[in-house]
Amino acid sequence: MSHIEDRARRLLHAQRADVAPFLAMDVASAAQRLEASGRSVIHMEIGEPGFAAPRAAREAAIGALQGTPIGYTHALGMPALRARISKHYTDAYGLSVPAERIAVTTGSSSGFVLAFLALFDVGDRVAISSPGYPPYKTILGALGLIPVEIETGPDSRWALDGEAIEKAHREAPLSGVLLMSPANPSGTIVGREALEDIVATCRRLGIRLISDEIYHGLSYGEPAETALRFGDDVVVVNSFSKYWCMTGWRIGWLVVPEALERPIERLGQNLFISAPTLSQIAATAALDATEELEAIKAIYARNRSFLLTELPKIGFDKFLPADGAFYIYADVTRQTNDSPAFARAMLEEAGVAATPGNDFDRARGHRFLRFSFAGAEADIGEAIGRLRDWMK
Amino acid sequence: MSHIEDRARRLLHAQRADVAPFLAMDVASAAQRLEASGRSVIHMEIGEPGFAAPRAAREAAIGALQGTPIGYTHALGMPALRARISKHYTDAYGLSVPAERIAVTTGSSSGFVLAFLALFDVGDRVAISSPGYPPYKTILGALGLIPVEIETGPDSRWALDGEAIEKAHREAPLSGVLLMSPANPSGTIVGREALEDIVATCRRLGIRLISDEIYHGLSYGEPAETALRFGDDVVVVNSFSKYWCMTGWRIGWLVVPEALERPIERLGQNLFISAPTLSQIAATAALDATEELEAIKAIYARNRSFLLTELPKIGFDKFLPADGAFYIYADVTRQTNDSPAFARAMLEEAGVAATPGNDFDRARGHRFLRFSFAGAEADIGEAIGRLRDWMK
Repeated sequence: MSHIEDRARRLLHAQRADVAPFLAMDVASAAQRLEASGRSVIHMEIGEPGFAAPRAAREAAIGALQGTPIGYTHALGMPALRARISKHYTDAYGLSVPAERIAVTTGSSSGFVLAFLALFDVGDRVAISSPGYPPYKTILGALGLIPVEIETGPDSRWALDGEAIEKAHREAPLSGVLLMSPANPSGTIVGREALEDIVATCRRLGIRLISDEIYHGLSYGEPAETALRFGDDVVVVNSFSKYWCMTGWRIGWLVVPEALERPIERLGQNLFISAPTLSQIAATAALDATEELEAIKAIYARNRSFLLTELPKIGFDKFLPADGAFYIYADVTRQTNDSPAFARAMLEEAGVAATPGNDFDRARGHRFLRFSFAGAEADIGEAIGRLRDWMK
Repeated sequence: MSHIEDRARRLLHAQRADVAPFLAMDVASAAQRLEASGRSVIHMEIGEPGFAAPRAAREAAIGALQGTPIGYTHALGMPALRARISKHYTDAYGLSVPAERIAVTTGSSSGFVLAFLALFDVGDRVAISSPGYPPYKTILGALGLIPVEIETGPDSRWALDGEAIEKAHREAPLSGVLLMSPANPSGTIVGREALEDIVATCRRLGIRLISDEIYHGLSYGEPAETALRFGDDVVVVNSFSKYWCMTGWRIGWLVVPEALERPIERLGQNLFISAPTLSQIAATAALDATEELEAIKAIYARNRSFLLTELPKIGFDKFLPADGAFYIYADVTRQTNDSPAFARAMLEEAGVAATPGNDFDRARGHRFLRFSFAGAEADIGEAIGRLRDWMK
């Protein structure tokens, strides 16, 4: 008993709650405080579209708000939404993915929790890339898994590849690999052949592959390929947050192998009950709003071209690929060796918020800044104007 | 390497994904299938109000759907909602709970995940009552914790008490206790003195207390007391699902000790980003819709009185307390020793769905059925009519 009493006195929270803050969110909070004090801030720090969900999605939600109870749904999601997502795989990729393999989730966030719990036991090692999406590490760690960071660089266009995965696995066995394409923060899209090689490598080595396809739909050259093209044994994570502009709706989905359907259903029933019902109704409609969404994507494309031309002129001249998603991850070695301090000064003095790279890459992030270009064109133009003056 | 390859071949999912299905949901699915085939079913199986969220809540959501992006919020929730929940503690309990200690969550479900991760490390033992809410065990287990079931009975009105907690702790040290009052499925409300004793016992033994107050507001005699009355060192879980009729909105909250604010914020940022924004907006308005909600509660009260009178006449004459919540947990020993089979027959032959007790109590649940009375009065009347005919 005494060790527990001691612990309760010494520790105020569990060891696994000692997680790193998600700096992008802290920057956003600082930006909000600055705005509350009357200052104007251009937000390039958060991975969030500056546009509302499609009109049809909002109207579907309004239609559902007339008085019928908004109740729980099936743990795996409303049948209509699962069927519509299945059709999306036919429309967007020419693939047949049965609705039974689709699990609707509360954003990609609960999708990761479900997928990790369903696939891995405490102590399992799961590879992720560095730079990469910061919460991966935290969620893996909170669930008792060991994140294995594989450092990427220009040779592999800042992405994981089959060779790097096999090398890491030979050093210490991996149970899983988590791949994101298009990637946050690099924007890298893993090409078709490289993706096929990753799927085959994982299969050969007995490693489970989770493919985070949350930025699919947002590519500015060749579209991103889905890992499902190369087998039914992968787990795909997706979300309505990015292409469909539905961040605050917290709605996403998983595609899982047939054998995982029932475990995912049971875990979902117990851990989350079901995803938000209004968001499920709206998402079903959003999948038909392609015209509106392509117009928004065209804005991102123009923002991206503008930044790729203008940022070098003001001194930010080294970027990662930016094939897709809505980020430019800039190497700011020429400007600073302390990107958090640089970002703070840029926010306070220039009124432009961007995220220091430390979130994404512990080792090298102090030399990087992530700019999101998911906002309005006028804002991006204004940001460049402010930065031009400030950099002088 | 080989053990991992072997495992991948042998196991299709992680061991911790071997969780029990939540039978209430399976019964609901069977009921839906029966309805889809054209049969009429009275739903007394699910813990879900038969009424819509208050009009003001729905109107607030509609107002937010006019074109402004529904973006992420602060990880701990919108300031307006946190302030309004703080005011609720003043209004409903006469307590001062600062908004800083309130974390808005995606239903109580994500509240449990956050609270367990923040308070307990892998291997920690957490006591729960049997009978009790089935997902507790599963969530604890999925997060690497050991649920310790304490069997309750008529002597303690089917609730945990300080003595039972201390006894369990002496047998093997507990890190936490999870208490629910009013309870699902028993309906038991832990009285003020008993609750104070539980809080004091946990404090004395260095055990963290989590008080699940999700059925607060729904009591049919004395209102339930909050554990916050007796100290700031408890964690309270609550939700808009029950009293506020907002199940499918997936919105709830935690009250945490000051020292846990930042760990909960960091975990929330990483694991869930934020709770659904529309639901936060609607919930803020729902807290002012007391008149409408009290009218719904009056319906539950009439349903409860009706069932307490009528169920004995048709043979179900032994219940747990039913002080609050919206359940009658009936001992059906006279009718059957196999409540799942009995519930199936009752559904198929009488068209009345109820949940077998096995979900709530592995040892004794085969002799219990849970009836929810959160539906319309006409439905409850019809159910009794059907059961009367069927029981003959």
